[in-house]
Amino acid sequence: MDEMNDEHLLQLLDEGALNQLKTEANEMNPADIADFFEKVPKEKRLLVFRLLTKDNGADAFSFMDNDMQEEIISAISDQEMEHIIDELAMDDVVDFLGEMPANVVTRVLRNTDESTRKIINQFLNYPDDSAGSLMTIEFVQFHQDMTVGEAMAQLRKTGVDKETIYNCYVIDHRRVLVGVVSLRTLLLSKDEAIVKDIMEEDVIYVHTLDDQEETADLFKKYDLIALPVVDNEKRLVGIITVDDIVDVIEQENTEDMEKMSALIPSEDEYLKTSVLQLAKNRIVWLLVLMVSGTLSSAIITHFESVLASSVALAAFFPILMGTGGNAGSQASTLIIRGMAVGEIEPKDILLVIWKELRVGIIAGAVLGVANFVRILVVNDVSFAVNFTVSLSMAITVILAKGVGCTLPIIAKKLHLDPAIMAGPLISTVVDCLALMIFFNVARVLVL
Amino acid sequence: MDEMNDEHLLQLLDEGALNQLKTEANEMNPADIADFFEKVPKEKRLLVFRLLTKDNGADAFSFMDNDMQEEIISAISDQEMEHIIDELAMDDVVDFLGEMPANVVTRVLRNTDESTRKIINQFLNYPDDSAGSLMTIEFVQFHQDMTVGEAMAQLRKTGVDKETIYNCYVIDHRRVLVGVVSLRTLLLSKDEAIVKDIMEEDVIYVHTLDDQEETADLFKKYDLIALPVVDNEKRLVGIITVDDIVDVIEQENTEDMEKMSALIPSEDEYLKTSVLQLAKNRIVWLLVLMVSGTLSSAIITHFESVLASSVALAAFFPILMGTGGNAGSQASTLIIRGMAVGEIEPKDILLVIWKELRVGIIAGAVLGVANFVRILVVNDVSFAVNFTVSLSMAITVILAKGVGCTLPIIAKKLHLDPAIMAGPLISTVVDCLALMIFFNVARVLVL
Repeated sequence: MDEMNDEHLLQLLDEGALNQLKTEANEMNPADIADFFEKVPKEKRLLVFRLLTKDNGADAFSFMDNDMQEEIISAISDQEMEHIIDELAMDDVVDFLGEMPANVVTRVLRNTDESTRKIINQFLNYPDDSAGSLMTIEFVQFHQDMTVGEAMAQLRKTGVDKETIYNCYVIDHRRVLVGVVSLRTLLLSKDEAIVKDIMEEDVIYVHTLDDQEETADLFKKYDLIALPVVDNEKRLVGIITVDDIVDVIEQENTEDMEKMSALIPSEDEYLKTSVLQLAKNRIVWLLVLMVSGTLSSAIITHFESVLASSVALAAFFPILMGTGGNAGSQASTLIIRGMAVGEIEPKDILLVIWKELRVGIIAGAVLGVANFVRILVVNDVSFAVNFTVSLSMAITVILAKGVGCTLPIIAKKLHLDPAIMAGPLISTVVDCLALMIFFNVARVLVL
Repeated sequence: MDEMNDEHLLQLLDEGALNQLKTEANEMNPADIADFFEKVPKEKRLLVFRLLTKDNGADAFSFMDNDMQEEIISAISDQEMEHIIDELAMDDVVDFLGEMPANVVTRVLRNTDESTRKIINQFLNYPDDSAGSLMTIEFVQFHQDMTVGEAMAQLRKTGVDKETIYNCYVIDHRRVLVGVVSLRTLLLSKDEAIVKDIMEEDVIYVHTLDDQEETADLFKKYDLIALPVVDNEKRLVGIITVDDIVDVIEQENTEDMEKMSALIPSEDEYLKTSVLQLAKNRIVWLLVLMVSGTLSSAIITHFESVLASSVALAAFFPILMGTGGNAGSQASTLIIRGMAVGEIEPKDILLVIWKELRVGIIAGAVLGVANFVRILVVNDVSFAVNFTVSLSMAITVILAKGVGCTLPIIAKKLHLDPAIMAGPLISTVVDCLALMIFFNVARVLVL
């Protein structure tokens, strides 16, 4: 549907039917307009951008990716730029400026009035993952001594430019946040009522420097649509809306998955990241894991005499270590994810270990037996070798579950990120355990 | 802070200071009240629940987990239950009933009026992962021929019970969705204006049976707060609000992570899932991967003569396969995640392969050289063995990147879930490749 529409618009552009293009493009959703720009030939983008109304141009701009924003902003006049900045919500301006090169930032700041410039500069100083970096100043605030009638009048007058008017925040004479009042409550109250008397005093808020992940957790716990942000004196400085939190959640999940796969997290889009950067993000962990894998080599070398007496044993290394690693990753993923969404806490460690022990015994027994049967059918090895492999596998699975569930919790207790205690690191540890078990069992049963 | 407050409330309960407890509990946020219930001794929960006002009781109820909900609902009278159901939003009622045993569902349905019962039954029939299962009927709708004055009057009268009043949906005489009008537009328009003339006609919507993941994608793409849901005739039947979408996103991410770690996804909380169920969710994939690992054993057996002539080679299996597996997981995770968030599409396959090829060459070269140095320092093996291991490692890393980036895209093209093409399966494939490369290089260089 979208694709077809884009084709149609491109055809209008080719034919020079600009009036028709103007009408149709301005009726589109800004997010779709932004998508359409990706398909417009580079040399015609400015032309198309100028067909948009000022509102639509600014809205579409906020949905564009940073490369496209830079391209547009570099091509347009100062006056056009000023209009875009005026129309954008403050958090979108700051997000955009945060990704632009210095010359673009300077040019934008030069063309905004002083009060806006001051706010932008302040916002640009919040750390990347802080609540402050997510907030917007487009919110509704009432003084606590206002009447409901005055509040509603103010809302009608100024509310139209705000990101949300469903929750209005209440401040005292020092601008300290003292409460929140919903539009629902305002509509139900008499005009003469005082805001202070009808507001909810138990208001949930964050500080500008609080972590964005904790902020997202509050949204999830309390099903919030918006959340006020205060400074050190509890003065109201902004709000965060849920659409930005959706992005934070996706970003945090991406980071966790990347860490769990031995990658250094990156916020850049895959297709737009340079090959060198991609290689760098991967090589660090591969090297660490390789060097720590030295231990498993040492174990095999140590038992070389056992191996030399029965070379057939080596054929079972991959399956033994693979199964152990997988069993460990399963446990660690469940625990890491459980802690991330708040279902498991470090104090549950004994409960978790007890649970994993039992799961490990069941899984270990099933896999040991299945492996025994598999080897009987497929391989031509002695009973002793088969029994050695299968018993080692059962013990390895049990230990893998134990290691997999314990390391992430210990990491959390040590205030490290549990996500690094996932598959790759767990596998390296389990590899060594598996080999030690295997050779020790083999020494008794095979030799 | 929360912990301390809960301790304080528990003390009040112990001392029998019920009036004080009643006052303080009713001032708390419903989500915090629900948390507090987890700490109240089982035999006193009903007592505490009855201290809450009807509104607070119902709100707190909606934040409780299913076990607690079942406990409360089984203990209270029919009349109390009726009140909770009345106060809850329809989507919360349906979520709750979907998790209750049949006898509870029957009792609830017996105690609701016929129209509610009809709606509940209809909602319970939507598939688990469909847009219909997420929606609520608490929304504002206007007829297209209404004036703004009439619409605002209706909003003031009925809007207070709605989940959102910021977006109001417009229908024609057959209840077909024809547009959306924001509160902002209503506030800016003259009372005499007709809704049809000021509404936005280009309204984004989903069908009841659309997948919840696609629904979440629309929220992310268009930064939505709410989204209307229509039936096959495009008649408006409900809306979905962003707070439920936040839960969907977390749930879909959890599912992806579980699949990527060779787990069968489960929606139940870890600590509340039985050991047998946990074991079952893990054993299936472990068995599949073990059986497919048979191939790597066969390769080693096939080359047993090479191994017998230099048993030292076996010491490098773990590090070679480990590095290959990790390199493959890195690539597959980036691609799986990139496709999940819409940054990579199957048509980008050649771009991706070309990128991974170059990343693989850089990473392979660095790891091969690092490994050569490592073996020189740590191991006492011949130059030929060292060179075999290091060269094999470099080639393996390159191939692992290729396999890791290709399989998820192929899965997507075949309409399979790319998430299963992650670490464990990639590692199994890469293990075989690594061994084949290793033995073939060894045959030339070592023998």
